[in-house]
Amino acid sequence: MAPELAFEDFAPGRVFDLGTVVVDREEMVAFARRFDPQPFHVDEQAGKESVFGALAASGWFTAGLWMRTYVDAVLTRAAALGSPGGEEIAWPAPVFAGDELRASMEVVEARVSRSRPTMGLVKLRGWMHRGDEVVFRSTFTGMFGTRERVAPS
Amino acid sequence: MAPELAFEDFAPGRVFDLGTVVVDREEMVAFARRFDPQPFHVDEQAGKESVFGALAASGWFTAGLWMRTYVDAVLTRAAALGSPGGEEIAWPAPVFAGDELRASMEVVEARVSRSRPTMGLVKLRGWMHRGDEVVFRSTFTGMFGTRERVAPS
Repeated sequence: MAPELAFEDFAPGRVFDLGTVVVDREEMVAFARRFDPQPFHVDEQAGKESVFGALAASGWFTAGLWMRTYVDAVLTRAAALGSPGGEEIAWPAPVFAGDELRASMEVVEARVSRSRPTMGLVKLRGWMHRGDEVVFRSTFTGMFGTRERVAPS
Repeated sequence: MAPELAFEDFAPGRVFDLGTVVVDREEMVAFARRFDPQPFHVDEQAGKESVFGALAASGWFTAGLWMRTYVDAVLTRAAALGSPGGEEIAWPAPVFAGDELRASMEVVEARVSRSRPTMGLVKLRGWMHRGDEVVFRSTFTGMFGTRERVAPS
């Protein structure tokens, strides 16, 4: 069965609501212990004394939470071909245990690959919001098969 | 005790060897199951049939491995104040289970904060190499206390 979303479905301006996640304290700290064991990410007291004012999530954990919402809401039904990377990753505000974060994404640009005409390159911007506040933003490129590739006529 | 590395120690051009890591298959897949469960990251056969040619690591896992080397080799002995984000993240080649990756970092630019004169903003570029091949690259900003902040005279 062909995926529901091909390159052509990622039209500039299209917005995807990726749903919400709640930051689990135990998982947040376990992630930091393994990948980013800076004191303010793993120790309550060190967090309180830090610039963040409380135990704060590793930015890479927030990125991972966002990625999961993107996979669940979009990539599982898309002709996804991976990503070469991105041009922006930002953590404008710290994330704390128990925060409810809303994930979203917008299509910024889309073009067919010059070298591989059945593949499209889509510039996407993803966000995590806590209320009105942006806590994570990333602009990156996703590669998707065209309709011709996923469902040849 | 004052940290060994203050803002002044991050001079443009300075290179840090962050050591090597070997990609553990079980951890690589567990990470992908939780944060990036695209078929080519979690299923051997799907990996073989994908653009990567084999089960490939989630790029966020590679980023996490790099981050850990940076924390261990640099941040644990630095007056680190977090990061607002970065301007580049790239995965030029897929990473596979068993790969030995060498992590490194270079200081690109450094300036004292205009609004907070005891804090410096350092533009850093990090890499993961497999042999001569770059598999991860990221350019981001790190914030560090100045000597005056960490060890007032």
